[in-house]
Amino acid sequence: MDARFSIGIDYGTNSVRALAVDVATGAEVGTSVFNYPTGDHGIVIDSSNPDLARQQPRDYLQGLEAAVRGALKAAAAAPGFAPDRVIGLGVDTTGSTPIPVDAAGAPLAFDPRFAGHPAALAWLWKDHTGHAEAAEITAKAAAMRPQFLAKCGGTYSSEWYWSKLLRCRRAAPDVFAAAHTWVECADWIPAVLTGTTAPARVKRCICAAGHKAMFHASWGGYPDEAFLAALDPELARVRRTLPSEAVDVADAVGSLTPEWAAKLGLPAGIPVAAGAFDAHLGAVGSGIQPGTLVKIIGTSTCDMTVAPLAQTLPDIPGLCGIVPESILPGFHGLEAGQSACGDIFNWFVQRLQPGGPEAGSHEALTRGAEALRPGESGLLALDWHNGNRTVLVDPRLTGAVLGLTLHTTPAELYRAWIEATAFGARAIVERFEEYGVAIRRVVNCGGISVKNPMVMQIYADVLNRPLEISRSAQTCALGSAMAGAVVAGAARGGHADFAAAARAMTGVLDRVFRPEPGAAAVYGRLYGLYRRLHDLFGTKGGAENPFGLMKELLAIRDEARNGK
Amino acid sequence: MDARFSIGIDYGTNSVRALAVDVATGAEVGTSVFNYPTGDHGIVIDSSNPDLARQQPRDYLQGLEAAVRGALKAAAAAPGFAPDRVIGLGVDTTGSTPIPVDAAGAPLAFDPRFAGHPAALAWLWKDHTGHAEAAEITAKAAAMRPQFLAKCGGTYSSEWYWSKLLRCRRAAPDVFAAAHTWVECADWIPAVLTGTTAPARVKRCICAAGHKAMFHASWGGYPDEAFLAALDPELARVRRTLPSEAVDVADAVGSLTPEWAAKLGLPAGIPVAAGAFDAHLGAVGSGIQPGTLVKIIGTSTCDMTVAPLAQTLPDIPGLCGIVPESILPGFHGLEAGQSACGDIFNWFVQRLQPGGPEAGSHEALTRGAEALRPGESGLLALDWHNGNRTVLVDPRLTGAVLGLTLHTTPAELYRAWIEATAFGARAIVERFEEYGVAIRRVVNCGGISVKNPMVMQIYADVLNRPLEISRSAQTCALGSAMAGAVVAGAARGGHADFAAAARAMTGVLDRVFRPEPGAAAVYGRLYGLYRRLHDLFGTKGGAENPFGLMKELLAIRDEARNGK
Repeated sequence: MDARFSIGIDYGTNSVRALAVDVATGAEVGTSVFNYPTGDHGIVIDSSNPDLARQQPRDYLQGLEAAVRGALKAAAAAPGFAPDRVIGLGVDTTGSTPIPVDAAGAPLAFDPRFAGHPAALAWLWKDHTGHAEAAEITAKAAAMRPQFLAKCGGTYSSEWYWSKLLRCRRAAPDVFAAAHTWVECADWIPAVLTGTTAPARVKRCICAAGHKAMFHASWGGYPDEAFLAALDPELARVRRTLPSEAVDVADAVGSLTPEWAAKLGLPAGIPVAAGAFDAHLGAVGSGIQPGTLVKIIGTSTCDMTVAPLAQTLPDIPGLCGIVPESILPGFHGLEAGQSACGDIFNWFVQRLQPGGPEAGSHEALTRGAEALRPGESGLLALDWHNGNRTVLVDPRLTGAVLGLTLHTTPAELYRAWIEATAFGARAIVERFEEYGVAIRRVVNCGGISVKNPMVMQIYADVLNRPLEISRSAQTCALGSAMAGAVVAGAARGGHADFAAAARAMTGVLDRVFRPEPGAAAVYGRLYGLYRRLHDLFGTKGGAENPFGLMKELLAIRDEARNGK
Repeated sequence: MDARFSIGIDYGTNSVRALAVDVATGAEVGTSVFNYPTGDHGIVIDSSNPDLARQQPRDYLQGLEAAVRGALKAAAAAPGFAPDRVIGLGVDTTGSTPIPVDAAGAPLAFDPRFAGHPAALAWLWKDHTGHAEAAEITAKAAAMRPQFLAKCGGTYSSEWYWSKLLRCRRAAPDVFAAAHTWVECADWIPAVLTGTTAPARVKRCICAAGHKAMFHASWGGYPDEAFLAALDPELARVRRTLPSEAVDVADAVGSLTPEWAAKLGLPAGIPVAAGAFDAHLGAVGSGIQPGTLVKIIGTSTCDMTVAPLAQTLPDIPGLCGIVPESILPGFHGLEAGQSACGDIFNWFVQRLQPGGPEAGSHEALTRGAEALRPGESGLLALDWHNGNRTVLVDPRLTGAVLGLTLHTTPAELYRAWIEATAFGARAIVERFEEYGVAIRRVVNCGGISVKNPMVMQIYADVLNRPLEISRSAQTCALGSAMAGAVVAGAARGGHADFAAAARAMTGVLDRVFRPEPGAAAVYGRLYGLYRRLHDLFGTKGGAENPFGLMKELLAIRDEARNGK
């Protein structure tokens, strides 16, 4: 049989990528990236308010056409490829990135009345203007609906749907009044492709709804009107525009319209999968399954796993979310993460830049850090430069380092930041396992996992587990393409389910990072000290006197220096 | 009456300075510095052992001649100056810097049998090879003679006399056996000038004996033979070479020999004062008196004050020493200090050098730090990069910083280190006052006090007291010259006592750093957080949970940024 292909479309923060993939082999036969033209690297910002981050939905449409056409062009040379052999499409986006739309389903940003009004644009995930509203929602939920908080780690975030809506209602009531409803970017793109943008027709994916908009079957879907009205009656009005059901990535939201088929150069009528967030489809593209933790390691990390729906899971304190079917149909999706990872290394290189641009580069610092033995710097750091997402869910925490001497070097500090993020990663793995979610494999993807072997070796030593690296460098787009292959179905040359898609389309590199027992032993001791510091400054519980902590750190250092 | 002059001779770590001073006005009419030629910047080191630091006593003699002749030459142009108008000499040195000498009083370093043997050299104050022996002495004293420890802050240091002797006994028993006795550099130079180097004749100054060799009248002078024999019988042998009395800086140890008068170009027979350590005579040169704290701020700090002998003082936990007449006759000398101060700023500039040599210079970082308001960085640091001398007396402590974010800048960190040393300085002032030693004035000297007004303003704000700056830039040499004027006596145109010498010869600059109330209020809050951190990691007591500490730091930061 002729080869069949699926297209994955991955909307990132600054650009959109399209990827054409052979559904039988996972071979990535063509890809193309389009940078959003509006604003600063695609983001509309406000110099007087660093919390503001919006996007022009028109960029999404322009990029959709350009990226898909570019990917098809790149794929043209691949043996067996032809546009009419594309059998499905999948989409992932950032989130929560809600877009206010009118009664016809058109973004208010397209309405000349709101031209240039930032509140009418898409509210990008990293827009934090709603931080006071997030705190208000957390407080209201704690008082009225504590069950809502239990599913999102105990704290509702300013990055999420209702915080942004409430902020708009307060800061730009005219825009809020004009918005018939608000549609997540992850739902809007599939709706555009399938001609289902009318508010009553647009399908809402469980990934966005569950993780970020407090949707859960146990309380009847979205938060009830009484709760939302207690925050603001206008939120209750929006609630009435939302469906009672959500879809998952195994569901097609419709088929590609002739109009969009012509724009993209694809066959009309092929199915389009429901959308999901980028990290979730990145996990799919890394072959997530029960027992497999997928770590997406970039400026921050996402740490995801799944557990069978049949498994009764407790609420796990500190997890960003436990949402049925948010990652894979038939499974609970469990999402954790670190709010800064590569960002900390970049801060050290770009802000502190020890010794200047050359000596203070990632390359030079990595060379210096590689020469160090675990423990010999005597340093211990907390990786909280951007707060702590999992397991403390506390943005009001800050980074720290102990053990400084007059001889402390830049390379020692660089390694200490890496070790701190590794300790933070271990805290997440332990939290999963403490609550009955076994982690038997760890598959890594994201820039750092392929760019810096030293980081991965330190992670393997600290986690004391072998670490695998996802084969694809574009796991989010690959996950989307897998969704396209699944909604196409086996009969049309796609896949019957995600398990089949994963077997055919995903894999790991040959290189596995295995823990070195000596290093793992030292890191085991250092992790114990990290946990003490973590609990001292991160929880209200740890009243144990930490006097011995610095001493033990020095003892470990001295042993490491003496080669013990 | 014609002007009269005194010479102060100041032996530092890398060089010796001579200073000629008008005893009626304090005018500094000539000075000269001689760099020790042996070793690395005057220090014999051992690349295989960073703890080793020795000096060639021959350098001291060569420097004595060169520096005094240089100062006289420089003074020749001053109105009224002539070498025959010099009426006295004083000497200060580093310490504890003991020199092993033979039965005739000659340094073993001059004996061809020990040429090139580092153990036969002077053991410089910062030689830490005896750290294990120091711990052994502390343990033995705790068990047998706890009163010894009460006078030196609870811990005997590797920088001190008996640690070095015991180390030599263990590591170089041949040298130890050849040493008839060990003479502090501060005693040896006056003995050389007065021809009293024979072991039975050499006078021992209370400053060195009391602070560093456990000499105290209440237990009969030096530690008893039984105690020393319990450490090593050979120490008891040395004990028998030591006098039962000590002298202070108002005592002349003798008069200048014709031989040395000819070498130096000075009148024979003028009195030579007993020596003292540099910091102690620096305090004298800054006009120390009861109620006045003198802070010598350099790579580390010395914080000194005096209290009348008639005042009954408790043992003050954490003080390096309380020694009757160690600074001024008639007064208890109280010595505290921070084990790193400018060294921390230098570490940041030289080791980390954020942004490279230019952006990471003291000047550039000071400019950046000056623009910051107290509290706005959100940072809080511990100034323990070289341990903590006062009030914790714990070399096994390390530096730390809390409050890091992805936006933390080099200038913010630079300011945080400065603030941390200021908080450490405040902890010392509070410790004095808690134990009944009132501090009514603070006079500062040393490089940083004149070089960096921003540091002094931060110190004034943190201490919430006006800070004065000593008029002389060479307070140690000036203090030595004052001792020379006092031993000369009023009848020969000198001074009757140190009070008179201080009135005539010392003073402060017009510029006084006064606390700014708003800054002092913010620093009051930050100091509270510093103390919590200090007690958490520095004592076994503070079991209070510090969860709120980071939060309060952020609250202070946010208020500072909002200009509250």
